[in-house]
Amino acid sequence: MKDKQFLMIPGPTPVPERALLAMAKHPMGHRSSEFSAIMKQVYQDLKWLFQTEEDVFIYTSSGTGAMEAAISNLVNPGDKVLSLVIGNFSERWAKIAKMRGADVEKINFDWGQAVDPTVLKQRLDQDVNKEIKFVTLIHNETSTGVTNDLQALAAIIKEHGAISIVDGVTSVGALPVKMDEWGIDVLISGSQKGFMIPPGLAFLACSKKAWKAYENCQNPSFYFNFGANKKSVAEDTTPYTPNVSLIVALKETFAMMKEEGLENIYSRHAKLASMTRKGLKDLGLKLFVEDDNIGSKAITAVWPPEGISVPDIRKTLTKEYDIVVANGQDKLKDKIFRIGHLGFVSERDIIMALGALEATLKKLK
Amino acid sequence: MKDKQFLMIPGPTPVPERALLAMAKHPMGHRSSEFSAIMKQVYQDLKWLFQTEEDVFIYTSSGTGAMEAAISNLVNPGDKVLSLVIGNFSERWAKIAKMRGADVEKINFDWGQAVDPTVLKQRLDQDVNKEIKFVTLIHNETSTGVTNDLQALAAIIKEHGAISIVDGVTSVGALPVKMDEWGIDVLISGSQKGFMIPPGLAFLACSKKAWKAYENCQNPSFYFNFGANKKSVAEDTTPYTPNVSLIVALKETFAMMKEEGLENIYSRHAKLASMTRKGLKDLGLKLFVEDDNIGSKAITAVWPPEGISVPDIRKTLTKEYDIVVANGQDKLKDKIFRIGHLGFVSERDIIMALGALEATLKKLK
Repeated sequence: MKDKQFLMIPGPTPVPERALLAMAKHPMGHRSSEFSAIMKQVYQDLKWLFQTEEDVFIYTSSGTGAMEAAISNLVNPGDKVLSLVIGNFSERWAKIAKMRGADVEKINFDWGQAVDPTVLKQRLDQDVNKEIKFVTLIHNETSTGVTNDLQALAAIIKEHGAISIVDGVTSVGALPVKMDEWGIDVLISGSQKGFMIPPGLAFLACSKKAWKAYENCQNPSFYFNFGANKKSVAEDTTPYTPNVSLIVALKETFAMMKEEGLENIYSRHAKLASMTRKGLKDLGLKLFVEDDNIGSKAITAVWPPEGISVPDIRKTLTKEYDIVVANGQDKLKDKIFRIGHLGFVSERDIIMALGALEATLKKLK
Repeated sequence: MKDKQFLMIPGPTPVPERALLAMAKHPMGHRSSEFSAIMKQVYQDLKWLFQTEEDVFIYTSSGTGAMEAAISNLVNPGDKVLSLVIGNFSERWAKIAKMRGADVEKINFDWGQAVDPTVLKQRLDQDVNKEIKFVTLIHNETSTGVTNDLQALAAIIKEHGAISIVDGVTSVGALPVKMDEWGIDVLISGSQKGFMIPPGLAFLACSKKAWKAYENCQNPSFYFNFGANKKSVAEDTTPYTPNVSLIVALKETFAMMKEEGLENIYSRHAKLASMTRKGLKDLGLKLFVEDDNIGSKAITAVWPPEGISVPDIRKTLTKEYDIVVANGQDKLKDKIFRIGHLGFVSERDIIMALGALEATLKKLK
């Protein structure tokens, strides 16, 4: 049915009406006092969600833009970067750092597995000369639906002394991420996930320790520049014309988030994930990540039943039931499919998706 | 009056209802076939507007992002860059190139003046060893309301052999810019101007000659990468999650632009500019750029009458008449004000603005 599609992919995610209507308003002047008042509020709300006392920068870009922002403001060519890779998105850190000219060492874990903290600890313990300056990692690996034990990993990195650079694109706003308490140095996220607005904004917060690396960075990015953004946060503005429409929408979704409360948001996502995992198993399907402890609260990846292909499942779900789920990525393309349950999603949506999936599988049998 | 503000700044500019309503729709999946069909159309329309056979990349960023895209994909540290500076935005090229580590030489012209083609020619003629690899310039300098003779300047640069890198942020979609015919190598623009949608997208096209510089570029940007974008254009997609809402809105405004026709768009802007210039002079005001030949078709800068301050004029226009005009920038702050007349603007808007300005000046006398 036209205009009836419901996205259950890991982004873009559904957007509440309140935010959509805000997007339909005439754009405000980005240097007006009315807009500054909105920026001030949104900057405060970002600190609340990131659980940090540090400034959170707003970039008009995709999440990948904020990843490049982190690398290009901190890492110099030749710097040693350790990348913890558990899938497509955690691998992206390594690619960006390599393109920047860094000396990148990857530790690869099987897709579907989380980073083993003892492996990380062993590697960092070996680094007695403290050659490793940065460790990149992901909180929630969207390509596989695996959540790393970020608290444990950040602590190990902190103990070594390297700077941790964390992709929280599908975790911030869906599961607990305590930047300051866990000692995370750089944390990035993107708008089209837990923030419940369309894609087009990215966020980055940076610890005082990481800030020193920025001060020693040669040829940092101009557009994503940390210094220019820090100055702008203090003035309730942005260095360049931001996407005003999305920021106005974000003010609306932050109001909704604060009303719901952080703990309720996290427990809702936990419940949605456990409903999804149980429902899929009840349908006789095998989860891609069988260990509940590392299964993501934001997205669940699942194998198709034998004899039914992933493209057929996705096509039928879209055509018959107006539900869009995601394919696997890279080597998992057409091997698994992924159901997003983050952001503006309620239990009703999970019931609906599981019901539609049940009907789809019956049809395709 | 609340929700009644009308922006006459050089961006964000007014957005047609059709585009606003498109923005209020649920975001589409960026890897769906429906969205690919939209991308295909928008990529074609961009070539039409840029008047080029080259691919035009879409970046989810501000216009400044596309400026950094150009520099970071083409210029290596140590490369000699000649920057033609006539105001705040043309100066930005020099800043970005310097941050990239380039050897930047600036030729400064007085604010309010255009680049003198003979000065450029002399400088390039001196460069017998062809040390100058890139020349950065602006078509339409938004900070002063001056339009360079881009056709003449591009021809001089082409004759020398350097690569021209042009800011067309407030010119593409408002005045003729013939990328291929004029021999422009790199042309960038931004969404919140002639494109008639809110800020958040930027555009870049690159000639075959400039592409060779990209192929020799060390450590190009990952997020803004030319290679990744070229591959994506061929597949009717983008490398990373784009701002789908703005792209859907852009499809709508392109439909409107094609209906109006390029020549009509250009002559409408020429008419709006000449109405504005004549109207301001009739009010006894002195134009910042007195020469009609270099006065911008997109924005007009004007001195306040003696005894009345720019802040008072802007405040009264906003408070009493819900019209927002721009202040001067940097050394011209509070010295001049600027009236934008680009994008979704008709003669009615100019009549209204001039009438409100007349009443404002009477009130403040």
